[in-house]
Amino acid sequence: MAINTVADMNEFKALVADIEAQDGYRKPIAFGIARVDRGQKNAEKILQANFGLINWGENFGSAAVFIKSLQEAKCAVDFSGSEFVATINETFVSNAMAAFAPLVAEATGDAHKNIQVIKTLNAMGDIGKDFRIVFLFEDAPAESVEAVYLKLYALSLSKAPLRGINLNGAFGILSNVAWVGNTPYELDYLRDNEIEMKLKGTYPTVDSVDKFPRYLQHVIPADNTRILEASKVRMGAQLAAGTTVMPGASYINFNAGTLGPVMVEGRISSSAIVGAGSDVGGGASILGVLSGTDGNPISIGENTLLGANSTCGIPLGDACIIDGGLAIFAGTKVKIAPAELEKIKAANPDANLESKTTFRADELQGLNGLHFRQDSTTGEMIVRRSTREVKLNEDLH
Amino acid sequence: MAINTVADMNEFKALVADIEAQDGYRKPIAFGIARVDRGQKNAEKILQANFGLINWGENFGSAAVFIKSLQEAKCAVDFSGSEFVATINETFVSNAMAAFAPLVAEATGDAHKNIQVIKTLNAMGDIGKDFRIVFLFEDAPAESVEAVYLKLYALSLSKAPLRGINLNGAFGILSNVAWVGNTPYELDYLRDNEIEMKLKGTYPTVDSVDKFPRYLQHVIPADNTRILEASKVRMGAQLAAGTTVMPGASYINFNAGTLGPVMVEGRISSSAIVGAGSDVGGGASILGVLSGTDGNPISIGENTLLGANSTCGIPLGDACIIDGGLAIFAGTKVKIAPAELEKIKAANPDANLESKTTFRADELQGLNGLHFRQDSTTGEMIVRRSTREVKLNEDLH
Amino acid sequence: MAINTVADMNEFKALVADIEAQDGYRKPIAFGIARVDRGQKNAEKILQANFGLINWGENFGSAAVFIKSLQEAKCAVDFSGSEFVATINETFVSNAMAAFAPLVAEATGDAHKNIQVIKTLNAMGDIGKDFRIVFLFEDAPAESVEAVYLKLYALSLSKAPLRGINLNGAFGILSNVAWVGNTPYELDYLRDNEIEMKLKGTYPTVDSVDKFPRYLQHVIPADNTRILEASKVRMGAQLAAGTTVMPGASYINFNAGTLGPVMVEGRISSSAIVGAGSDVGGGASILGVLSGTDGNPISIGENTLLGANSTCGIPLGDACIIDGGLAIFAGTKVKIAPAELEKIKAANPDANLESKTTFRADELQGLNGLHFRQDSTTGEMIVRRSTREVKLNEDLH
Repeated sequence: MAINTVADMNEFKALVADIEAQDGYRKPIAFGIARVDRGQKNAEKILQANFGLINWGENFGSAAVFIKSLQEAKCAVDFSGSEFVATINETFVSNAMAAFAPLVAEATGDAHKNIQVIKTLNAMGDIGKDFRIVFLFEDAPAESVEAVYLKLYALSLSKAPLRGINLNGAFGILSNVAWVGNTPYELDYLRDNEIEMKLKGTYPTVDSVDKFPRYLQHVIPADNTRILEASKVRMGAQLAAGTTVMPGASYINFNAGTLGPVMVEGRISSSAIVGAGSDVGGGASILGVLSGTDGNPISIGENTLLGANSTCGIPLGDACIIDGGLAIFAGTKVKIAPAELEKIKAANPDANLESKTTFRADELQGLNGLHFRQDSTTGEMIVRRSTREVKLNEDLH
Repeated sequence: MAINTVADMNEFKALVADIEAQDGYRKPIAFGIARVDRGQKNAEKILQANFGLINWGENFGSAAVFIKSLQEAKCAVDFSGSEFVATINETFVSNAMAAFAPLVAEATGDAHKNIQVIKTLNAMGDIGKDFRIVFLFEDAPAESVEAVYLKLYALSLSKAPLRGINLNGAFGILSNVAWVGNTPYELDYLRDNEIEMKLKGTYPTVDSVDKFPRYLQHVIPADNTRILEASKVRMGAQLAAGTTVMPGASYINFNAGTLGPVMVEGRISSSAIVGAGSDVGGGASILGVLSGTDGNPISIGENTLLGANSTCGIPLGDACIIDGGLAIFAGTKVKIAPAELEKIKAANPDANLESKTTFRADELQGLNGLHFRQDSTTGEMIVRRSTREVKLNEDLH
Repeated sequence: MAINTVADMNEFKALVADIEAQDGYRKPIAFGIARVDRGQKNAEKILQANFGLINWGENFGSAAVFIKSLQEAKCAVDFSGSEFVATINETFVSNAMAAFAPLVAEATGDAHKNIQVIKTLNAMGDIGKDFRIVFLFEDAPAESVEAVYLKLYALSLSKAPLRGINLNGAFGILSNVAWVGNTPYELDYLRDNEIEMKLKGTYPTVDSVDKFPRYLQHVIPADNTRILEASKVRMGAQLAAGTTVMPGASYINFNAGTLGPVMVEGRISSSAIVGAGSDVGGGASILGVLSGTDGNPISIGENTLLGANSTCGIPLGDACIIDGGLAIFAGTKVKIAPAELEKIKAANPDANLESKTTFRADELQGLNGLHFRQDSTTGEMIVRRSTREVKLNEDLH
């Protein structure tokens, strides 16, 4: 059995409709074909999944073709779980080629990238056991390495919003491996071969030992995005175009990143998000849900400055400043002079700020136009209205 | 002359006993066989020593065999110094093979690793001049590159305790080289060939210029240890299983490290040690003996938190907290309210703390359960009893 | 037409004089021959220029030979602009060889490096289109990638002083590329080939995405200079011999660096300069003109210590200390006790310091012997005379 070569787009649409009408068929919320890296010792262990393309809430016709091609390759697709993963083979590829026939010629450049994947596999001939297809039917905790990578790609390619994907259990699924360039090695394989490799001079140059690869191993940033050192951005981070990541003390973890052009010289911990035009100064730390924010993920607004070596433990709005060297946590007490409080209220018409002079920092969280300073003559932590302009939404106010 | 092929374990033991009975024989406290990297310009200069295995206070029978094999290869072993280093050759290898004969078959996996080294060399045939054996008879200042590396391996493989080895003079013995992956290059060699390499496009990618290599160039960490960027841990550091080293502002120097699972996002300077369950926050600095502690090496206890961008210049016990952004040095004056002082005394039954309210920080060094904070309304540095539980040794109290 | 083989040094000098007497001839202030890396997609786009040698205010005879060799290769040299760049070919090389004939034999080691460049090209035979020569006639804004690189080399090789070169427009001329080792890749090329490279396992290991390469991609540091991680120093930085750059939180940007041996564990932003014997502590930040100093570039004197996690926003003289964790900006108010003020005046005989107790930090900028501290009992920022010796110039005072 096989898919017959499809003659034209009408036939193609009919084929897709036919596949989707299958009993139990579910449109996947995401899918993709990956070349996987397998364990050197344990080939059953998937160490990494490399996607030339992922689909996230899109390209359902290609998904249907892939599902049918699996079925024709005698691989039963199980729609009952939250995800389905299978190794693909040449039969799968030739069936998909047949289905895509009317589109193959025009599948170049930015057009029909799923078909480009199939064309590439078709041209390779024998594809071995290293190509795997994964479908997500729900955004449940991932059950496979391929599903974890599909989600990390979705974040890093900005196909899914930060904090918008279920990443539960991802750490448990990924193996801790030695990364040699883009290639993951099982630590046990290195141990087994250490003596021989050391004596023969073939011991590899290990760049890192981690469960996650680096963002730049998988993702091509925008033309005006700069990442001055690959180790500084973990796969699963999201960087908006125009973001610059300097190599000093910076780091952007997975499920964290920027929403616009941001100068990053400090740390954006997992779950933290920074808005356009803001500046994370040299050595500045934005705490993550795992590092002191009590599960309260931190968003930083637009045009906000975290000074060098400052520490930010609360969400901030737009146009704020934390002076260099200051650490602001939820419980930090800050003083606001009455005149400054009025200005802050004007910059935050929706906020209900008590008329008092001492605030816990978390009473101010998310507000615009705050400037955190320390009075260097008294040591007192104070907040003033920053000199940065707050752009209020005039439609609302 | 040669060692005759040994027939069984009794003969092997007799051979070892015979060797050890030699006049002047000393059991080495450490030894190993390394493949060395020699200078590209000056081949007499050893740039690096790569050990597939080191022995540290162990495997004295293998040591005896190696010494005898050297002697049979017409290399007189000098026991009078603190160390002895020699180039080994094929005669050495075949003698050692003969001596180890009854054990060769079972030398695989984790068994008889010194014999695996010899088997590997034997299988290589011509081993050239790049294999060197080093014996330490005392823990004196190293006199050779091989001895320095043997000591760095002992630290990084946790065979010797941090601060437990004589590293005097190590800097003077190692050459400052350009590291290209795992290969060291003499800077003068690069200079001599710069024009040609630049014009031909063969100039190497230099990862660093340093006397020391990186930990991951030589050491395979435990399965649950993560080092997200190789440059962050120098050879000679020691990382207990479960330690994670993040790539932001962290660094672990040689003769420094962790005694249990520790999250490292800051700097552990040379001589500093951090206990299990502690957290070195993003950008936190633990000063080393070369950077401001007046030769007083800093130990941090268990379950202690150094907040983001904090600086720690004194030893701390268990369950302490330094708040983010604070810098605590020996001379920093801190206030302790009487009620808090009582709680601190309860957490430190052996400490003799004066009943006063202002302390120099070094009067508190090594105590458990301290929480260093700055009162943000007055700028005053205060210490309270931390909210972290201190586990006292009930046998003692 | 061609340059006839020059017989001796008299003929060589006559040739040079003849060339320089050309109508409109200008001696270049700088020049060099580079192998360029061209775009993989757009070969007209120069991505990088690799110089085996640059000339900066020197070797005008070689410049004359190169100009004549271009002219003989039918390339008209335009002296009217601030710079001139051309692709060289085999005719250029053979003319230069003829002109340099009396010197070719002795052009080895440190002698006659321009001639070594020509000899190397001559030995290569077909040199293709990837060798370019650039002349600067003025220090105007660069108009070509080759000119930008020539200037960055001049800074990094200490041939030009920091802040001493016109770098305007450099960012606009360089392309943002993916660096794979020393090779720059156009991001669009990676995009065009992503699917195929990912599926075939040939996707490259990208070290960084930036307009600038790293210092160590182009520069061989002094024998006693250490850079523990290549990403920490950008091309265009200048490191005096004996400088050590640690891998924790450090970074040295282009047009910034050191004037003598300096321990660098923090950030030296673009335009900042640090004097001999000073120490930029772990995580310390020296602000740059782009990061908060209002265009006032920061110089740090000699024997000055910026403590761990300190932030320095003002110029400092010799023998100063900023305590760990402190942030000093132009507007920071500091208190100086009268007795300390007298000592500070003694260390700064030329300064006109008012007799008062509270100063803005920028009133103290550039002074020697300042010690910035925070009184941990009051939070007050104070300045004392540091305990470090200030060496005054006795000739002047």
